[in-house]
Amino acid sequence: MDKARFYREEIGKALEGALPAPSPQDPQGLVAEAMRYSLLCGGKRVRPVLTLAFCELCGGEPLGALPFACAVEMVHTYSLIHDDMPCMDDDAMRRGRPTNHRVYGEAMALLAGDGLLTMAFETALGFSGDPQAALDGARLLAQCAGAKGMVGGQCIDLQSDGGKMSVELLQAMDKGKTVALIHAACGMGCIAAGAQEGQLLAAGRYAHGLGMAFQLRDDILDVEGSAEKLGKETGMDAARSKQNYVSLLGLEEAKRLVERYTQEAVRALEGFPGDKGFLRDFALGLASREN
Amino acid sequence: MDKARFYREEIGKALEGALPAPSPQDPQGLVAEAMRYSLLCGGKRVRPVLTLAFCELCGGEPLGALPFACAVEMVHTYSLIHDDMPCMDDDAMRRGRPTNHRVYGEAMALLAGDGLLTMAFETALGFSGDPQAALDGARLLAQCAGAKGMVGGQCIDLQSDGGKMSVELLQAMDKGKTVALIHAACGMGCIAAGAQEGQLLAAGRYAHGLGMAFQLRDDILDVEGSAEKLGKETGMDAARSKQNYVSLLGLEEAKRLVERYTQEAVRALEGFPGDKGFLRDFALGLASREN
Repeated sequence: MDKARFYREEIGKALEGALPAPSPQDPQGLVAEAMRYSLLCGGKRVRPVLTLAFCELCGGEPLGALPFACAVEMVHTYSLIHDDMPCMDDDAMRRGRPTNHRVYGEAMALLAGDGLLTMAFETALGFSGDPQAALDGARLLAQCAGAKGMVGGQCIDLQSDGGKMSVELLQAMDKGKTVALIHAACGMGCIAAGAQEGQLLAAGRYAHGLGMAFQLRDDILDVEGSAEKLGKETGMDAARSKQNYVSLLGLEEAKRLVERYTQEAVRALEGFPGDKGFLRDFALGLASREN
Repeated sequence: MDKARFYREEIGKALEGALPAPSPQDPQGLVAEAMRYSLLCGGKRVRPVLTLAFCELCGGEPLGALPFACAVEMVHTYSLIHDDMPCMDDDAMRRGRPTNHRVYGEAMALLAGDGLLTMAFETALGFSGDPQAALDGARLLAQCAGAKGMVGGQCIDLQSDGGKMSVELLQAMDKGKTVALIHAACGMGCIAAGAQEGQLLAAGRYAHGLGMAFQLRDDILDVEGSAEKLGKETGMDAARSKQNYVSLLGLEEAKRLVERYTQEAVRALEGFPGDKGFLRDFALGLASREN
């Protein structure tokens, strides 16, 4: 079995184990079911795979980083649920299935997101190594997910809806919406392994390159991709008069930038002593992905 | 100055300091402004006052518990913002001012809540004493705020909307919606002071008594109170055909229960060696409050 698949399977099992067991009789059971619906629906698991891979790259036991990996995926999933809601993007489909609020209603989707964000911290704090590492990992997650990170990026997105946007503002938005949580994922892997400060910084550079390339590829797929492969509708940015890299820079320049940012990520791996093959191939694979 | 006022002033300063500075030029500034709007609007600060008071009762320096106190208030405030949204209770007024989504719009209110919940954990993890205490405090907060605590209580509330409700289900709902976060507040104060397990359990009993009395008093004020004093509309449960203690048990029985639960809280203080006057009077004061 290849490493990514092994990681994904372990992540899937750990996420399943972290969720409250389904109990239809329990009056609180429905929110747990709604959380489960969005968390256990497959998905590429990009962020938690990065956490395990960086832990291994820094000489740690990768599965020891599972609490951090699960926490990042929970934060990602909550952000998708809230982002899909009618007051935000009003999306009907996600990962090939109806969005959370289409199944459970808006109020329950709101709570499911809140529950997942809260559970993310409970899970990260359950990291069983050095207590200081548990603290540092959870704090990095909070910084990257909050008003100066992911939530801040969403804020820029909202304010720019339908309006004009500069490349600089688009970059600030994507640093928040996409790069920040990928940064948390990579950094938490390093922290789990007890890595040095210099390695944390290099992981941040990898996250920046990979995150920007990931977002650019997303924008390209929104224009060129197949809804069937993506599990969501395409052409949505144009339909919403939202600007993205492709509309601002053109398809060719966007593709050139994917290349450039991916190389930035690959170069950032140079500072690590171990086997860099997996994380290099991972970055290259995301840059050419079809979904 | 009395102790509660001193605590409240210190809490107000610490909350102000924890928020990102207002910066209208910053493209992420609006979500920070929306977070500030709801967090710094006064309010009774019941939960953070309890955190400082329990820290002091257990022999700790009360202001050392400020990161925990602020974290609990941030969680409380996020829950109010989300709870007021149109897909939940659709409330127009809160603490005498328009609700967050009435000022900033639904999408920004959603983000402001998400930002505050995330900042709560960042803030709690900034506790500067023993790292293990920082971990334990933040983990207790996550447990109490999540799907088995506050979010779980909200889930029961949603499902029972307009329908019949038993006293047992109402109690399960209020244990989640109200008691859980008060439990976190009291327990985090004990943890900040390095208290023993037995004191944590006693703090939990105090929180149960005070929290149930608090919720019952809320239901009574919804029937008997003045909208002017409360800063929000009254008669809302009846208007929404929501059942509460008063509709299920009658006004007299509800008042009797406030008394009983308040005594439960006061008795729970017996296990602590220090001066119990403040926390006893605090419970008695909440039981007869007019807002």
